[in-house]
Amino acid sequence: MPRLTIHRLPMAHPGDVSALAGLLESGALAPGSVRAVIGKTEGNGGLNDFTRGFFTQSLLHLLSAATGEAPGTLAARIPCVLSGGTEGVLSPHYMIFAAEPGDGAEGLAIGTAFAPPAAPGDVGNDAQIARVAAATRAAMADAGIENPARVALAQVKSPAGGPGLLLRSVAAGAMGAALALGDVSAASARGDALLEDLDLFSSRVSASAGVEVLRDEVVVLGHAPGWAPGLSIAVRPMADALDLAAVQSAFRAAGLEADPDVPPGQRPRIRAVLAKGEPDRTRLVRGQRHTMIGDTDLDAQRHLRAALGAVVAAVAGDGRVFVSGGAAHQGPPGGGIVAVIAASSGEDA
Amino acid sequence: MPRLTIHRLPMAHPGDVSALAGLLESGALAPGSVRAVIGKTEGNGGLNDFTRGFFTQSLLHLLSAATGEAPGTLAARIPCVLSGGTEGVLSPHYMIFAAEPGDGAEGLAIGTAFAPPAAPGDVGNDAQIARVAAATRAAMADAGIENPARVALAQVKSPAGGPGLLLRSVAAGAMGAALALGDVSAASARGDALLEDLDLFSSRVSASAGVEVLRDEVVVLGHAPGWAPGLSIAVRPMADALDLAAVQSAFRAAGLEADPDVPPGQRPRIRAVLAKGEPDRTRLVRGQRHTMIGDTDLDAQRHLRAALGAVVAAVAGDGRVFVSGGAAHQGPPGGGIVAVIAASSGEDA
Amino acid sequence: MPRLTIHRLPMAHPGDVSALAGLLESGALAPGSVRAVIGKTEGNGGLNDFTRGFFTQSLLHLLSAATGEAPGTLAARIPCVLSGGTEGVLSPHYMIFAAEPGDGAEGLAIGTAFAPPAAPGDVGNDAQIARVAAATRAAMADAGIENPARVALAQVKSPAGGPGLLLRSVAAGAMGAALALGDVSAASARGDALLEDLDLFSSRVSASAGVEVLRDEVVVLGHAPGWAPGLSIAVRPMADALDLAAVQSAFRAAGLEADPDVPPGQRPRIRAVLAKGEPDRTRLVRGQRHTMIGDTDLDAQRHLRAALGAVVAAVAGDGRVFVSGGAAHQGPPGGGIVAVIAASSGEDA
Amino acid sequence: MPRLTIHRLPMAHPGDVSALAGLLESGALAPGSVRAVIGKTEGNGGLNDFTRGFFTQSLLHLLSAATGEAPGTLAARIPCVLSGGTEGVLSPHYMIFAAEPGDGAEGLAIGTAFAPPAAPGDVGNDAQIARVAAATRAAMADAGIENPARVALAQVKSPAGGPGLLLRSVAAGAMGAALALGDVSAASARGDALLEDLDLFSSRVSASAGVEVLRDEVVVLGHAPGWAPGLSIAVRPMADALDLAAVQSAFRAAGLEADPDVPPGQRPRIRAVLAKGEPDRTRLVRGQRHTMIGDTDLDAQRHLRAALGAVVAAVAGDGRVFVSGGAAHQGPPGGGIVAVIAASSGEDA
Repeated sequence: MPRLTIHRLPMAHPGDVSALAGLLESGALAPGSVRAVIGKTEGNGGLNDFTRGFFTQSLLHLLSAATGEAPGTLAARIPCVLSGGTEGVLSPHYMIFAAEPGDGAEGLAIGTAFAPPAAPGDVGNDAQIARVAAATRAAMADAGIENPARVALAQVKSPAGGPGLLLRSVAAGAMGAALALGDVSAASARGDALLEDLDLFSSRVSASAGVEVLRDEVVVLGHAPGWAPGLSIAVRPMADALDLAAVQSAFRAAGLEADPDVPPGQRPRIRAVLAKGEPDRTRLVRGQRHTMIGDTDLDAQRHLRAALGAVVAAVAGDGRVFVSGGAAHQGPPGGGIVAVIAASSGEDA
Repeated sequence: MPRLTIHRLPMAHPGDVSALAGLLESGALAPGSVRAVIGKTEGNGGLNDFTRGFFTQSLLHLLSAATGEAPGTLAARIPCVLSGGTEGVLSPHYMIFAAEPGDGAEGLAIGTAFAPPAAPGDVGNDAQIARVAAATRAAMADAGIENPARVALAQVKSPAGGPGLLLRSVAAGAMGAALALGDVSAASARGDALLEDLDLFSSRVSASAGVEVLRDEVVVLGHAPGWAPGLSIAVRPMADALDLAAVQSAFRAAGLEADPDVPPGQRPRIRAVLAKGEPDRTRLVRGQRHTMIGDTDLDAQRHLRAALGAVVAAVAGDGRVFVSGGAAHQGPPGGGIVAVIAASSGEDA
Repeated sequence: MPRLTIHRLPMAHPGDVSALAGLLESGALAPGSVRAVIGKTEGNGGLNDFTRGFFTQSLLHLLSAATGEAPGTLAARIPCVLSGGTEGVLSPHYMIFAAEPGDGAEGLAIGTAFAPPAAPGDVGNDAQIARVAAATRAAMADAGIENPARVALAQVKSPAGGPGLLLRSVAAGAMGAALALGDVSAASARGDALLEDLDLFSSRVSASAGVEVLRDEVVVLGHAPGWAPGLSIAVRPMADALDLAAVQSAFRAAGLEADPDVPPGQRPRIRAVLAKGEPDRTRLVRGQRHTMIGDTDLDAQRHLRAALGAVVAAVAGDGRVFVSGGAAHQGPPGGGIVAVIAASSGEDA
Repeated sequence: MPRLTIHRLPMAHPGDVSALAGLLESGALAPGSVRAVIGKTEGNGGLNDFTRGFFTQSLLHLLSAATGEAPGTLAARIPCVLSGGTEGVLSPHYMIFAAEPGDGAEGLAIGTAFAPPAAPGDVGNDAQIARVAAATRAAMADAGIENPARVALAQVKSPAGGPGLLLRSVAAGAMGAALALGDVSAASARGDALLEDLDLFSSRVSASAGVEVLRDEVVVLGHAPGWAPGLSIAVRPMADALDLAAVQSAFRAAGLEADPDVPPGQRPRIRAVLAKGEPDRTRLVRGQRHTMIGDTDLDAQRHLRAALGAVVAAVAGDGRVFVSGGAAHQGPPGGGIVAVIAASSGEDA
């Protein structure tokens, strides 16, 4: 029986996979058990952020040497979801999701799937929504999850699609997963609603896009029989970037105290912290003008990640938070989602 | 008898003083009662941030028209402490500190003082420390505070001093005020300790510097006889930019709940929220690598303000937080301070 | 009879109008003779560039003190065309266009006009094209120019119009002036051609937009009877940002040598150098990939101004070049225009 | 007998080495003939520019597959000098310097050498000057050049050395090479002159530094017996970033016309264009204030590269110019150098 394990590792720079190399060399992790990688690199998070591609190349070369499989083969079966931009207190890190041997009747499961390659520019439309919905269903099947209600989180990564399309691609990825999870209806999950009808959303979808991605990739986390217990996951909608209560609620629902932050003794149980958010398009946060949008020198998503990331990190107790902007259709308008995965009490990192 | 009042006002852009104009026109505020202005404009906070100068010019023209005094005369008696940079959720705003008529035996007092003009480059040294210490003592006297222990907060603004000197000037301003308050000894408050011996600090000093400032200015807030009651102030050291408990503690000490944030019904009682912080020079926050220092595209202080500001704003309930980087000698190394001023229960904005 | 004079002045920062103050105080310039101001401030040139507004406020206060007219009255009759962004070797400066007494039968003339105030968002459309065309005709009449062929250059400044509209507003300003000059037909000068049909252009129009502008303003320069001689103007299309030959051609046509640059002895005769350009949308310059578009950290127009400005400045001999991006419909696609005004041989600054 | 050949290749992104892969696959270039690589990637050119490391990793993996040598072995014998930052019209590209079979008595020769690995922080001092001087002499010997006067250009790449040290490391690399070439005396080439005594310089040294570099690397180009003819090189000092005449002079000395630019028919003969420059520390260019230094949002070297690169590109005819900032001790103060390598008339790319 598989047990989902998550190794949260530091990187000294975007080409540094030495922490994973150490795990593989010591035998602490079998290279064949790696199912997905989610990480945060220190670029600008935009179209000309090449830190994601650099890290992915470094990772694939390492796994290739360890498994004997070609980098391209690995890239076609292991989703690598990298998000650039560690503004403020955020810390570059990556999480290796592995299916290692374990015991138990039911537990947190992982499933992955890849959509067929998309033609350049074929994003942000009905076709991408359908591709991602199908991939999300395939990832559920891969995890052994039949009921969409048992899915805790779907993480989507899509091609950037070219200038001006990045946020549309993120939106379509989110909409596709939301459709597969039943959080939006087939009638409403249409291309013309993307970035427009923000009341269409799922609070358990996290989507991003990057220039180094050639096809939509989906990672599903949820509860399924046949997986060993030991990890708790909680996902909560955030009403806005300042929704401190929602962040605390997610940590508590994952089995940790948060008063106001996770106590130092419990922090080693944290396996993953993810958040999505968006500069509020009304240009107000809680009724006060913000200046994230329209800043010629500092990209709106960089503003947002720094702020949202700090709020989540303040509760978590450190800056290893996967924060990604572009949260249209992921959580309520102007807000987003926060997700926490923690080891059960008594199990440490 | 004077009563300190604080009007917290929005600005639509750095030249917008219409909210103050409204108060003056309606008679809600007598122009002669203005004692100091502290505000946050939306520039980059660095040497080439001219939003501070633009706001100050706009403000002085308005007050000049209302009082009949020349702008230069006003600038020589009313400290205008502007900090640029409203990264993330921060909101451009300014606070008018006024001494209006009131009743009572003792309350929160304000005092101000200006140092003599400094020669260009004559900052970041023993001379500036001495100038600021003297001005701080003068501001205490102006407020009617004899015992330095009764000072809650000293806010210092100094000339930028030229390229490469800005952070040194901030440090010398902080050291000078710390010396006057008795938080560092005369033996240790020397120029060669600036930016070096970070264990020398005061947790009730906030300092900044700007290219538009020609001489050191000090605003002191503290408790003194002869001032009306009605406002509470609390200042707390922050151990680092993620010190959520310290932020909550400051709000609670100012008479507000913070569980985790100030309840909406109490938010109108908030009069001012100020924070100082610093990108941790060890390049670690809680043991994890941050990337604030050494980012060629995004200034370290912009990173910091976005993160620290969001943590404070999440507790306050909105983004009207005066956050300023360059916190050497203000709170513990790698940390800073947070200050809250609130109206007593029952008094609303 | 009027003589057009141009005083090219330095600024130490965006609030510095001391050079003009000196001219007014010495009597070298009569305050009532000022007809237009064109300048370059050191902001980022985007929506959140407030250096233009700061300079304009400073200028109007100075002229108000000198003329006795209110700043608002002056702003309604003296176009102030400020462009932010002095990237690379560009130098912040401003040019005072004045109509001073002179003698002669025909010479370089100036005319100005203002369109009615536009509602927020009412830019980038047919209405703005019509407004600017009418204002351009009014400016020609003001200069005494009947034949559009006698117009050398029309400089347009328009409201930014809000997020996402800035480049559309620039385009509509350019199209409106091009229509009035007869360089595009009424049938083709339509809103739906803006930023789309780049083959519609005038090579003697320069347009820009800013958040501080409330209505379209036009300055026309051309030859008319009743103005004194003494200034030469030459305007040339640039095929791309590297069109060094076009730049030299403009200087030569204005009566200066350029081999490869203007000789030091002739440089004092230069009165104004203006250029418009655009990051090539094909993402190629001379067949090689450029990276100006899609850079999350550095705005495309900042890239462009630095490059184009340096090419023009290298010929001019210094960095006092008014370079402005957003050149759609101003010169050929991917290119722009360059304009030079010089005093006739024998007349020095 | 060897013939130096230079293949100038485009890259679509910093991980794209497909153009070189094509040359290797077609047999047009023997993998064992590669002696050095000099290239320009599209990052920000600063400490957190990882595009250089990404390109280098991609290149080494490709050459490793082609030669059977490990990437680390290749990195220890083939200098890879990457400079980040293609601001303005600059185009990402790389030049493969190869020693292929040829005939002739004397021609342009290449030699390379590596200094021993430096401890972190051991840069910007006397030790680095000595290391680089020794490596420069070794590179001369490798090329077969006995007389330093026969060296046309020494290209140095050094470790960044950590925060605050990057420009010192560049300076020490330049000083070390200048010492070896006899352009500065041993008495003056000392650590305390670095970045201070700018009158100490060589006009035939180009130096840079990067975080991905672990030891000083030197490439020397010059004339030596035993190499085939066919390439011309010319290097000229630039008095400042606007020194258009110097740029033309370099192209002409390399055998090309430049009136004002290289004619299209001759452009295929260009093999390499390199320039070094520096934001003038006096904050003036030709007597006018520039704003490159002290811009919080846009790094001074990014400003400079955009401007200097455009001036050189305007003469070359396209944006494939290796421009690198940090030119202390390389060319005169406030200026820099420009180098052109071209195939002799009749030989095309």
